[in-house]
Amino acid sequence: MAPPDADIYPEATGQAIDTVKAHQSPAPLTLYAGWFCPFVQRVWLVLEEKRIPYQYIEVNPYHKPDSLLKLNPRGLVPTLEYDGKPLYESTVVVDFLEEAYPDHGSVPLYPKDPYEKARQRIWIDYVTSRIIPAYHRFLQFQIEEGGREGFEKVKSEFLGHLREWIKEADPEGPFFAGKEPGAIDFSFAPWVIRTWVFDEFKGGSGIPKEGEKGDDEVWKRWRKFAEAIENRKSIKETTSEPEYYKPLYKRYADNIAQSELAKSIRAGRGVV
Amino acid sequence: MAPPDADIYPEATGQAIDTVKAHQSPAPLTLYAGWFCPFVQRVWLVLEEKRIPYQYIEVNPYHKPDSLLKLNPRGLVPTLEYDGKPLYESTVVVDFLEEAYPDHGSVPLYPKDPYEKARQRIWIDYVTSRIIPAYHRFLQFQIEEGGREGFEKVKSEFLGHLREWIKEADPEGPFFAGKEPGAIDFSFAPWVIRTWVFDEFKGGSGIPKEGEKGDDEVWKRWRKFAEAIENRKSIKETTSEPEYYKPLYKRYADNIAQSELAKSIRAGRGVV
Repeated sequence: MAPPDADIYPEATGQAIDTVKAHQSPAPLTLYAGWFCPFVQRVWLVLEEKRIPYQYIEVNPYHKPDSLLKLNPRGLVPTLEYDGKPLYESTVVVDFLEEAYPDHGSVPLYPKDPYEKARQRIWIDYVTSRIIPAYHRFLQFQIEEGGREGFEKVKSEFLGHLREWIKEADPEGPFFAGKEPGAIDFSFAPWVIRTWVFDEFKGGSGIPKEGEKGDDEVWKRWRKFAEAIENRKSIKETTSEPEYYKPLYKRYADNIAQSELAKSIRAGRGVV
Repeated sequence: MAPPDADIYPEATGQAIDTVKAHQSPAPLTLYAGWFCPFVQRVWLVLEEKRIPYQYIEVNPYHKPDSLLKLNPRGLVPTLEYDGKPLYESTVVVDFLEEAYPDHGSVPLYPKDPYEKARQRIWIDYVTSRIIPAYHRFLQFQIEEGGREGFEKVKSEFLGHLREWIKEADPEGPFFAGKEPGAIDFSFAPWVIRTWVFDEFKGGSGIPKEGEKGDDEVWKRWRKFAEAIENRKSIKETTSEPEYYKPLYKRYADNIAQSELAKSIRAGRGVV
């Protein structure tokens, strides 16, 4: 029997498919990817930002190619093949790309100052260990099972985490550390551009628009950040058309998705 | 009412207290610590290995000093104060120490090669996201509640994770990458030296001794690694007398500990 998620659209669309098509030739780096996966997008947009040559291989999660399984027996994406050897864990791969290709790209991914670099790593870790699980607890919450009060709780936990994160950012911005984006922005970007899922499936994200009830300086700074993320070239060029994400995210919203992350969240765990 | 864990012995003992006493003077770095905490030990032994001057401040987790709360409102240890500013998250702090003090210590914490460095980071992450939660699920498991079968499952998951990790290590060793230890060894060491808790409270860790049933080349390599860790000077000098850990770990073994980690594991989550 085919797994229940087998109706994933088979390839990227919109601006992302042009990027995919431009990266079909063999290259020293191979990105095993899923066009819809935010963890893939973390790595993908750093490859684009740094203009590192790479080959993009779309992986059907239910028919994983042998070449991937040989590299990474769990067959997870993103997996990066470098010199015939595998790398995975999106934040590790991002750091690797910066260290292996220090002179690529227009902006460094991290500040030179070790303290400021460490501080940014703390807040990248906060995205992975706090914000992403909270995003999924909110998205996968079923009011029929957990009640309205439980729903408001997971929603406000998610919003609280966004506020805590953006308060750490440079006051002017628009990016975390100021005018130029870095690893911390790219590590968060895939979820920043996926907050529409709450409007679509959960009656609204709760992030106030300008002048709406609850709006304040913190949310103003958030919107400035989110807008800069949405308008970044590398992000647009690795993002598919919205309608193709919808059936995938509906499965999360109905809490029937079968991805590792979906199951982990359902079991009460985090990102593993 | 005093929290139930308030009977923690107030200071380090054994070789660790000598190390504490040697680091009482103000220094550019301050380590806010708990003598019993494995996450603190990760940072502490890197400070020792690299011979970086630091001041050690023992934090009573139920009477946190204002100086710590000002730096880190959650008051977690380890917190490192650097130039009046806070750093936390033990793996971030370890990387910071290497980057801020590159010429300290006898051995570099990471290899120069970016690929090999990234590979080690994957397996450091494996310690944090897989092994430590598995360690706690095993330790906190209550047979009366979860049954013998459930107990065997959490035990074999823990053992399977140890085997998967050590298979990635250099075949000769004794350390992960060969003769010299690095960040990956120091990030794992505090739990490696705490597997006695399973002998004490859970009827044995299940790690076979030489020639015992189940012994093989993988376990032989594990024992070589564990022995090298146990005998490392920095590790001995940051470890207290066993009897002082016992009441603390008994609380985990009885699944009544109230630390953030204990509660997270009880709720089915991981290290957050």
